[in-house]
Amino acid sequence: MLEEQKRAGFRPVTPAIVEELKSIVGEQHILFDDQEKLKEYSHDEVAEEMYHGLPEVVVKPNSTQEIAAIMKLANRELIPVTPQGAKSGLSGGGVPIMGGILMSFERMNRILEIDRTNMMAIAEPGIITNDFSAAVEKEGLFFAGYPMSLLTCYLGGNVANNAGGGKAVKYGVTSRYILGLEVVLPSGEIAFYGGKRVKDVTGYNMVQLMVGSEGTLGIFTKIVVKLIPLPKAKTDMMVLFKDLDLAIAIVPKIMTEVGVTPTGIEFMDRLTLETSCKHLGESLEQYKNAGAFLIIEVDGNDAEQVLNDSLDIGDYCMQNGAIDAFVAQTPSDQEKIWKLRRNAAEAFKAISPRQTLEDIVVPMSEIPRVLPVLEGLSIKYDVFIPCYGHAGDGNLHVTVVKNPDHSEEQWLEILPKILTDLYSEINKIGGTISGEHGIGNKRKQFLTLVLGDSEIESMKSIKRALDPNNILNPGKIFDL
Amino acid sequence: MLEEQKRAGFRPVTPAIVEELKSIVGEQHILFDDQEKLKEYSHDEVAEEMYHGLPEVVVKPNSTQEIAAIMKLANRELIPVTPQGAKSGLSGGGVPIMGGILMSFERMNRILEIDRTNMMAIAEPGIITNDFSAAVEKEGLFFAGYPMSLLTCYLGGNVANNAGGGKAVKYGVTSRYILGLEVVLPSGEIAFYGGKRVKDVTGYNMVQLMVGSEGTLGIFTKIVVKLIPLPKAKTDMMVLFKDLDLAIAIVPKIMTEVGVTPTGIEFMDRLTLETSCKHLGESLEQYKNAGAFLIIEVDGNDAEQVLNDSLDIGDYCMQNGAIDAFVAQTPSDQEKIWKLRRNAAEAFKAISPRQTLEDIVVPMSEIPRVLPVLEGLSIKYDVFIPCYGHAGDGNLHVTVVKNPDHSEEQWLEILPKILTDLYSEINKIGGTISGEHGIGNKRKQFLTLVLGDSEIESMKSIKRALDPNNILNPGKIFDL
Repeated sequence: MLEEQKRAGFRPVTPAIVEELKSIVGEQHILFDDQEKLKEYSHDEVAEEMYHGLPEVVVKPNSTQEIAAIMKLANRELIPVTPQGAKSGLSGGGVPIMGGILMSFERMNRILEIDRTNMMAIAEPGIITNDFSAAVEKEGLFFAGYPMSLLTCYLGGNVANNAGGGKAVKYGVTSRYILGLEVVLPSGEIAFYGGKRVKDVTGYNMVQLMVGSEGTLGIFTKIVVKLIPLPKAKTDMMVLFKDLDLAIAIVPKIMTEVGVTPTGIEFMDRLTLETSCKHLGESLEQYKNAGAFLIIEVDGNDAEQVLNDSLDIGDYCMQNGAIDAFVAQTPSDQEKIWKLRRNAAEAFKAISPRQTLEDIVVPMSEIPRVLPVLEGLSIKYDVFIPCYGHAGDGNLHVTVVKNPDHSEEQWLEILPKILTDLYSEINKIGGTISGEHGIGNKRKQFLTLVLGDSEIESMKSIKRALDPNNILNPGKIFDL
Repeated sequence: MLEEQKRAGFRPVTPAIVEELKSIVGEQHILFDDQEKLKEYSHDEVAEEMYHGLPEVVVKPNSTQEIAAIMKLANRELIPVTPQGAKSGLSGGGVPIMGGILMSFERMNRILEIDRTNMMAIAEPGIITNDFSAAVEKEGLFFAGYPMSLLTCYLGGNVANNAGGGKAVKYGVTSRYILGLEVVLPSGEIAFYGGKRVKDVTGYNMVQLMVGSEGTLGIFTKIVVKLIPLPKAKTDMMVLFKDLDLAIAIVPKIMTEVGVTPTGIEFMDRLTLETSCKHLGESLEQYKNAGAFLIIEVDGNDAEQVLNDSLDIGDYCMQNGAIDAFVAQTPSDQEKIWKLRRNAAEAFKAISPRQTLEDIVVPMSEIPRVLPVLEGLSIKYDVFIPCYGHAGDGNLHVTVVKNPDHSEEQWLEILPKILTDLYSEINKIGGTISGEHGIGNKRKQFLTLVLGDSEIESMKSIKRALDPNNILNPGKIFDL
């Protein structure tokens, strides 16, 4: 048993408890004693081992009732329960850092209903987001709230993190599409908040309190998702600029001056563009004078209108400092553009596996003020800090990459200093630490840099109200 | 002092407390002892006196700090505080039913910032929604989350109720546009949740927990509102159908078959249409075969596209049972159509001031199943139950009108029975009691008809966590 776990007043998972868990979910849906297999559930996409944690037992429930029974047992025995999705998280939110019971949703992956008339669907948390998207698209419907990791992530994880993605400028993030949740509360009681209703003010908005609560307030067992008609046409445009300041300055004007709200506006700085090209074996020739790269996606129902909107945006960009603009109308041309952006994280990992993918968000207009901050930090600490992300949302995936000349000890020493400096500066310009990846285990030590006592204490009071034993996903977002 | 107030453990407002309140907000911003003036603050738009309540003192603070000081005093002295906006509420949510301190926001009506680059504005809660809308429209921006009562209501009330309105089909309700809130918590502490950021997952979504909490969890002092580019063109279409079933059946198909998402889809039944026409002195001639009336609003940036979308919808309606369709492109023609819908509530009030305006919401596809329920209730209880509302959202303003032949006693006896029957039936088809008007004082006795113990108890636990003395707006949504 971990020291931390003991300190927090939790008890160990005994063989008797394992037997009781077996009686709830069935013997074949329990992992225990097999350290290699348990280890697979000990981490998400965060590489640093200090953010990993080994579960004592893994359970794979298959129903709301089984989950409720597990939570009742956990409360009775004071054993922590960590809900875990696809392990594609970027903040350690689904990692069992206090040991105890790891609850995996891999078996709860059904679509329970696709309701074409109301444009809604009900699904379980363990469905892969892309499978869910594909199923509703067959019905001419569209789930607009998905993140970049849709090929691997689970819908439940999207909801738990209030995931963003590449279409948030026009369509918003996951939360906008979640109308109802069946939830097993930390106590083991089952609640159904909201429902198949686009408007509902009957009591507090528990649905939106649950969305983004990172598995600390309740376990989602059924998710009611609002869908929209599948747009019939889209274009992706690549626009090159001499420098990032010029590129970023144009972003709000696309909406206010051109009058078009694109689906998404992504950007990459020069370093990201180069690294991504090299990683993919692409020539840099066509980007030779480009200090920054924008991807602007426009969609709609009328192909001609969509193309005209794109051309209007392209013209505006060219009149305002762009050095090149190219509208991709075919899926293969579109894929060519997006590939560079989607592979950015992988490309940096290939250079140095030691890096931290950050998720700061600032008012869109303040992005230019972030860039000198990054430059200053990169000089001060002698590291690379490339930057890419969702320009239209002010959500920047600043990536601090370990200098290969630095020792592991140096890296571990400077990393918290870099992040403290970064977050403090971001806070000064109205920004915060996470736009879509969450706080989890990785960022909780920095929460006080951007939130005050009254904000944090009020959040903690809600956690205590719903989870008096601190049984559900303890040690995430904050320590109680 | 009221019996109820004493039972709840509250203390009366003494002259000493009035002196202290004067020292906080200034003598001229306090009302005390003048029963006539106090009475003006004793009700909202709900007519029944049983839902009214006289405050002991009215305070009109002018700053966050003054509000914080009042809340600290109220906690120390155990005096209830009821925040009140424009008194345009439809559920008694801002009525001081436990006496105590009535906090009016009439002085806090400033727009603090309009940020055109980020398309956001920051305002105080006491600004009239229409004043706020007009100010942002001057900057080419649009606040899409406003309710029908925008000429009188306050922005703070819109947020407290998570108001809906006539544009929710396309633009969603108020909550979608609220990105940040400065809040005085019940304890008197000041918190700032969210900010000028379109994405934020740094801790729990306290902003959306506060939105729609009906002034029971915190007092909003600054509201960060997301705006969108002002649409350049709109059309309003009137479509007549022989009966309501035909009209309602077409609503989802406008989106799924025609592929257009209108701004709003409103409907009126025959009784509402007749009553509204009579009230306005309009001829019924052009509506003579109409059993139902739809208003379909379409907007966008391209006038031609908007007109084409409207014509597509009109054609589809005519091919599917409509008896007439008329697209209004000029403001005066548009006003003519909307006037009938906007005056519906007034028209019924003119016939019988004794009526209850309801706010049920069901999955859009279930609207046809509501109609026979209303017919059954109207026969069983011998009352008129006209129906109009937001068809595109499934949000129906069922209006139970007192039969002039019934005595006041009869009306008061049957009304709760009618509502119990109505809500129970609505619950069976996946609906709930309030889509946009709130629970407040008027509907709390019916909450258990649509929510179970675990839902209500979890909401109460949050109320207790943030307001342990039950000081802020007690007796609303539920009794603790």
